Amino acid sequence: MISNIMGVSGVEHIGIAVRELDQAIRLYEKILGVKCYKQEIVPEQKVRTAFFMAGNTKIELLESTDPEGPIGKFIEKRGEGIHHIAFLVKDIDEQLTYYEGEGIGLIDKKPRKGAEGLDIAFLHPKSTNGALIEVCDEKKE
Amino acid sequence: MISNIMGVSGVEHIGIAVRELDQAIRLYEKILGVKCYKQEIVPEQKVRTAFFMAGNTKIELLESTDPEGPIGKFIEKRGEGIHHIAFLVKDIDEQLTYYEGEGIGLIDKKPRKGAEGLDIAFLHPKSTNGALIEVCDEKKE
Repeated sequence: MISNIMGVSGVEHIGIAVRELDQAIRLYEKILGVKCYKQEIVPEQKVRTAFFMAGNTKIELLESTDPEGPIGKFIEKRGEGIHHIAFLVKDIDEQLTYYEGEGIGLIDKKPRKGAEGLDIAFLHPKSTNGALIEVCDEKKE
Repeated sequence: MISNIMGVSGVEHIGIAVRELDQAIRLYEKILGVKCYKQEIVPEQKVRTAFFMAGNTKIELLESTDPEGPIGKFIEKRGEGIHHIAFLVKDIDEQLTYYEGEGIGLIDKKPRKGAEGLDIAFLHPKSTNGALIEVCDEKKE
């Protein structure tokens, strides 16, 4: 049985690592049938990003601006492809405390700023069967 | 400009490849804060699956029942992790025709049955920047 459940509210976005953002934007506009609604540079993450709405869920394309950044390293090791799932949570500080109590490893023990001004944190893929999982606070800054 | 747009309606599910389904179910019940609502064996795909609701989006864990199946090969090559994104489409036959017309490669040129009785097809990851993308028809059988 689960005690003290801290549930996620939904999928905020799915991140896909790509080598060339402009090419990928043109392609995903065809695949999803919608226009890219925003591009953003996130210097802390060394990425250039582009966002789409797939129904109610965001798709985020990520191009590395630095081979030593997390997306650059991911592509070098595994190639292009799905990079992470981001879940919405009601209170990110409480959620991270809950995960630590459940023995789930965290890359970010404290929230930091992600794209679109959200407070985010990544769980450690060794604790999540290899899936890179981000949690995003529902409250915008 | 995009012509003859065939848009997806949303994300139907996200698939995660795991080595041991029972262990992964216990873990994802903690991560997502909800109970697994269904398990299903899909012999055609050589997988045992478990489903969760993350808000309105399904998360599907996939354990291979055969090392030669697609999930078995994926894990051998890349390890556990996020395997595919499934998008809902209004009419899968029309959607596949549209993708072919746009030069997007298909693994399945015709729909086949997936989990939960949906008509599904996979796009070729060489045509989607390495992301394995499934499309699911909105109409249940």
